[in-house]
Amino acid sequence: MNRTTVPPPVTAVIDAAGAWLPLRLGEVERRLTDLGGGYGSLLGEDATTTLRAGGKRLRPLLVLLCAGAGGGEPAIRAATAVELVHMATLVHDDVLDDAPLRRGRPTVAATSGRARATTVGDFLFSRAFALLAGERDHRATALLSDASVALALGELAQRRDAFDMSVGEERYLERCRMKTARLFECACVIGRAASGGQGEDELRAFGGEIGLAFQLLDDILDVSGPPERTGKARGTDLLDGTVTMPLILAARDDASIAATDLRRLDPAAAEQLCERIATTGALDQVRSRALAMVASAKRRLNGPAFDSEQRSLLGLVADGVVERYS
Amino acid sequence: MNRTTVPPPVTAVIDAAGAWLPLRLGEVERRLTDLGGGYGSLLGEDATTTLRAGGKRLRPLLVLLCAGAGGGEPAIRAATAVELVHMATLVHDDVLDDAPLRRGRPTVAATSGRARATTVGDFLFSRAFALLAGERDHRATALLSDASVALALGELAQRRDAFDMSVGEERYLERCRMKTARLFECACVIGRAASGGQGEDELRAFGGEIGLAFQLLDDILDVSGPPERTGKARGTDLLDGTVTMPLILAARDDASIAATDLRRLDPAAAEQLCERIATTGALDQVRSRALAMVASAKRRLNGPAFDSEQRSLLGLVADGVVERYS
Repeated sequence: MNRTTVPPPVTAVIDAAGAWLPLRLGEVERRLTDLGGGYGSLLGEDATTTLRAGGKRLRPLLVLLCAGAGGGEPAIRAATAVELVHMATLVHDDVLDDAPLRRGRPTVAATSGRARATTVGDFLFSRAFALLAGERDHRATALLSDASVALALGELAQRRDAFDMSVGEERYLERCRMKTARLFECACVIGRAASGGQGEDELRAFGGEIGLAFQLLDDILDVSGPPERTGKARGTDLLDGTVTMPLILAARDDASIAATDLRRLDPAAAEQLCERIATTGALDQVRSRALAMVASAKRRLNGPAFDSEQRSLLGLVADGVVERYS
Repeated sequence: MNRTTVPPPVTAVIDAAGAWLPLRLGEVERRLTDLGGGYGSLLGEDATTTLRAGGKRLRPLLVLLCAGAGGGEPAIRAATAVELVHMATLVHDDVLDDAPLRRGRPTVAATSGRARATTVGDFLFSRAFALLAGERDHRATALLSDASVALALGELAQRRDAFDMSVGEERYLERCRMKTARLFECACVIGRAASGGQGEDELRAFGGEIGLAFQLLDDILDVSGPPERTGKARGTDLLDGTVTMPLILAARDDASIAATDLRRLDPAAAEQLCERIATTGALDQVRSRALAMVASAKRRLNGPAFDSEQRSLLGLVADGVVERYS
């Protein structure tokens, strides 16, 4: 894996880890990009664009770290499969949002059209399960398919809740757990299961908390911007009708925010709404919660199931989630 | 299972089979419809419309018949999982085609919108794998995920080939094998594996041949109609740019057909093209091939791995595939 192409927090973790980690991350990368080539004329360029576009590779990193230096081949397969499921959801998201770019490159939907992009997503999903099931990674298959069910249910819940200002904190968090945190949890547990180590429960909790923090900080970025940094206009989620935690908390403090009709927002009004949310102090509240989750996640690793290297590397990943915001 | 709601060829098979078959088909049906209810407010009505809309249930029927009377719970699970994957592909197809109706009922895409329908498809896919993997049906998970990869690749190949009049017989058949026949093969083998019986290779060949015949006869119906029977206008596939076997064979006999630019077809021109294909005798040629495949499929069951009940019931399913056309 070429270090210059690796974004933080992966860089920081690679710097701190032994040689085994970059080697395995590189192998995961190789398998992800080979996947397109392996099906030759059938798959063609449809999938390779996305597969090669990279990304943070946070989930494979978690799989490999939770497996540890002794993880080997099953960990590499699980890391590849988890990222394939993540990519499948991104490809389908881009179809639904008619997104032209992802990570600065054209989306599959933009280059191949909606129809082929939907099928590419289905292919990536199927390939993830075929990869694990074909090698008899039974536990991994069960973990990943359960997480995929949760992802879909979380996405459905979000679409059902769209534009509904009565969505409360609890419902919002339940949705984020399914839509985002479950795949982080899965990455951690599937990695641990691949190496047969102790500490699955702690790692599930660790993954769930940093996944939820990741989502909360993402919601803050949607409100705070700046667009130069996030690559999208402020209030993009709000324009889509997504009621996020900053909005929920701000609406409690400010009756005029609570009375907002999200269906009537235009980009300028969304920008104004972001300003008003920011003045309520809701962003600081959400950030405090996210930081508390990350701190709690790191404490999960104090038990005897983890050595100091794992504690420190996973701690760096947790810090990396926070750094997105700072 | 209410017999009055069951379409042929299932009816004929149920009439000929012992009580175990309708009981198990009923159980598969119950699980398919419960699936929506089981996720309560999260899934809501999005999936239940499609799940309850029924269909021929040919694939679950094949699973149960290939498992035989001794199949039991693993066969019921496999039958449910195979149908879930089939439904997932239908839901995604309807999104891509903006189809308002399927089996006379509104599609998920029509009632819930493209976004939710895409996610419902993802949910059905994931649920199929979770169902098998969660119960440690390892072989079944591997068989179904491999078949799903093939389905997606076949669908991609079809979309890549769209409007390309140079697509030949071999490429066309390869595509149909992946897009249609592989799930029939999978249904047969997964059923056999569920009961641990002999004869997997024969059943794979049987499933592949009736699956391919099924697709060829479907392609004939697109050209021959009549619309009152098929529920869609003649030439719908041609309008979508799909080069099918009748068109490939007709283009060999008639240079003016070979010179057709599918991109320029409108519904009236598609109807005319269907007429011209029919006058070449291509439909009879395709039908002869399909019938020969069905006859060959039935001969596969003459070996000692099959008793007379299985031979006769699977023979009825094979005949049912042909009856669609007659």
